[in-house]
Amino acid sequence: MVQYQEIDRTLSALADPTRRGVLERLGRGSATITELAAPFGISLTGMKKHVRVLEEAGLLTTEKVGRSRLCSLGPRRLDDVQQWMEMHRRMLDERLDRLGELLETTKGTPR
Amino acid sequence: MVQYQEIDRTLSALADPTRRGVLERLGRGSATITELAAPFGISLTGMKKHVRVLEEAGLLTTEKVGRSRLCSLGPRRLDDVQQWMEMHRRMLDERLDRLGELLETTKGTPR
Repeated sequence: MVQYQEIDRTLSALADPTRRGVLERLGRGSATITELAAPFGISLTGMKKHVRVLEEAGLLTTEKVGRSRLCSLGPRRLDDVQQWMEMHRRMLDERLDRLGELLETTKGTPR
Repeated sequence: MVQYQEIDRTLSALADPTRRGVLERLGRGSATITELAAPFGISLTGMKKHVRVLEEAGLLTTEKVGRSRLCSLGPRRLDDVQQWMEMHRRMLDERLDRLGELLETTKGTPR
């Protein structure tokens, strides 16, 4: 159940284009909240909320540096989420395979 | 922007253990809303809400069969989401590589 909650929190955190954009930005290097807010054209307060959501999901870490808060990519790996997506892909593929077989066996059958 | 919204909707839909469970169940075959609700111990009304969220994300399709509504796995493939997760994985790996290089170059350096 704990793992379920972790996946829930991760997927909720990622279900926002600004938050995904923040992670992409941090992939190129650490940045302060002010530096993160500017390109997205949102307020510092708004960015702080996004940062907190990402931090709670382990996708981002923050560090106090002087008067600023420096954000970096967090330790959370998406392996469990990727595994789930892969299982979903297999389920869809099998469904299509079964549909294909069904079409094959009914081919030539008089209507 | 359209694609962003689609990813957002998909991730939000998946950020719930019941909804992920419904998709896993449908991977084994179609089911009515009543059949879906029973194992999760939730009301029909509750399950209908989950089904609507999944349907809006293209992860599930429904079909009226007599008095029941039959649910099946929808056509939505998670390729774009998987691509994003893969990019995130590479970013994390590169960050760890840089950290490793940094540790290597500072090794043996007098403090």
